[in-house]
Amino acid sequence: MKLLRVGASGAEKPALLDPEMALRDLSQIVRDFDEETLSPAGLQKLAAIDWKNLPKVQGTPRIGPCVPRPLNFVGIGANYKDHVAEAGIPIPDEPLVFLKAAGSHCGPNDDIRLPRGSTKTDWEAELALVIGSKAQCVSEEAALDHVAGYFVCNDLSERAFQNERGGSMIKGKGCDTFGPVGPWLVTKDEVADPQSLGVWLEVDGVRRQSGNTEQMIFGVRKLISHVSHFFTLFPGDIISTGTPGGVAMGMKPKPMYLEAGQTVRLGVEGLGEQTHRVVQG
Amino acid sequence: MKLLRVGASGAEKPALLDPEMALRDLSQIVRDFDEETLSPAGLQKLAAIDWKNLPKVQGTPRIGPCVPRPLNFVGIGANYKDHVAEAGIPIPDEPLVFLKAAGSHCGPNDDIRLPRGSTKTDWEAELALVIGSKAQCVSEEAALDHVAGYFVCNDLSERAFQNERGGSMIKGKGCDTFGPVGPWLVTKDEVADPQSLGVWLEVDGVRRQSGNTEQMIFGVRKLISHVSHFFTLFPGDIISTGTPGGVAMGMKPKPMYLEAGQTVRLGVEGLGEQTHRVVQG
Repeated sequence: MKLLRVGASGAEKPALLDPEMALRDLSQIVRDFDEETLSPAGLQKLAAIDWKNLPKVQGTPRIGPCVPRPLNFVGIGANYKDHVAEAGIPIPDEPLVFLKAAGSHCGPNDDIRLPRGSTKTDWEAELALVIGSKAQCVSEEAALDHVAGYFVCNDLSERAFQNERGGSMIKGKGCDTFGPVGPWLVTKDEVADPQSLGVWLEVDGVRRQSGNTEQMIFGVRKLISHVSHFFTLFPGDIISTGTPGGVAMGMKPKPMYLEAGQTVRLGVEGLGEQTHRVVQG
Repeated sequence: MKLLRVGASGAEKPALLDPEMALRDLSQIVRDFDEETLSPAGLQKLAAIDWKNLPKVQGTPRIGPCVPRPLNFVGIGANYKDHVAEAGIPIPDEPLVFLKAAGSHCGPNDDIRLPRGSTKTDWEAELALVIGSKAQCVSEEAALDHVAGYFVCNDLSERAFQNERGGSMIKGKGCDTFGPVGPWLVTKDEVADPQSLGVWLEVDGVRRQSGNTEQMIFGVRKLISHVSHFFTLFPGDIISTGTPGGVAMGMKPKPMYLEAGQTVRLGVEGLGEQTHRVVQG
């Protein structure tokens, strides 16, 4: 299934993209893509519904973030060799884990707001996943049992805030609108192999990133297992799994960071596309 | 007012500690200490109630975290000179900001669970605050307008996970039960000066920390203003403001980290005390 949330920010309703690419209203069936709906039993119940009986969504509403604001919005850094090389850092011995702040969570086509004082806002096209059942100290073998589905995430990053302002990465990773997710959550059963998906991004029509999740240093199973040994992953939690090479920071001779007025398009194979306008925040 | 939440984990009800130190049930008045209740108008409404008319809480229920799980649980590192010295790091030019994971949030007297594989679990007695109204790019002058109240926090930290496992500080700061808050939220009107409060902690009755919030490198006003320039602080968000010297990491000749079976007591002047048992997680 392809699940999405449509409507004004904060008032999104659950919907389904049917096989004929029409939006169907799920709001009479489930309240939201919450713990209950994202659970294995909840998704099974949804899958059993005949989509032809669901009312069509009227008009062309805004597409919101495909999952509600999570308890933990986890990011993974330095997870593709070519990105590690362009960032000029060593290949990590284990996953580099950080959290994104709550206000970063937004819709796939919402405006990206450059924070006040930003000079180095950068893009990061990524495969993200959402947790469907609580994960505490899970093995790599069992890790995918805890996934409800996959979607696109742009893990935007202000490089000066991230690397030149002390402390953890949060200052550059947590800014408002720095974590658009969607357009839709593709349930796990429709993603045959999360480690063989193309990941791409364009700025004003110029291709900047062309990677594949097969190039990850630590795969999805390892990431879930690893994080779950440090803190509990709750249903609805997001893990964005890191970005391939091709970010602004790595550009030679000189990075071309995002500027107000630009348009960013990105996608992950089989998971749809995002399009953002960049505006001054 | 002294506001607290009592009952089993996940089913806490709002209550008030009256001037005679009895618990009064607020659950017929407010649903929880949520955005509405923590707002300036919400707190004003609560303050107008005659506590003598509120029913007493029956029995001696568990005291839960004094505020619900926040959208952002913000920690501040390296914010007291004596702690910076014992940690062997330079005095920061600006606040060191990190996020704690959702599962760290727990009650003031709940067991502290040593994570699997932990060898360096450490304590950090801190003054914490809760946001009462949304803060985006606020000035230091206006910062306290966004505070609903103050409470005690133990910002527990696994030093090996924090410092030897790569990435941001989250691996050592985010572990389950690593952020007990309370016992009660003391509303801002009862805290004359947040920069002159004693902060202390004992392990098995031995005093380990004795500081005062006047020793902070960056005061509460600066912390709120600073963080709010990187990401939005939402009502209910917690900022724990850093710990004075006296943590295990800094002990000579050798750190004595927490062990299962120990008891930790800590408090902040005027804000009550926490007591935890340390158990193997």
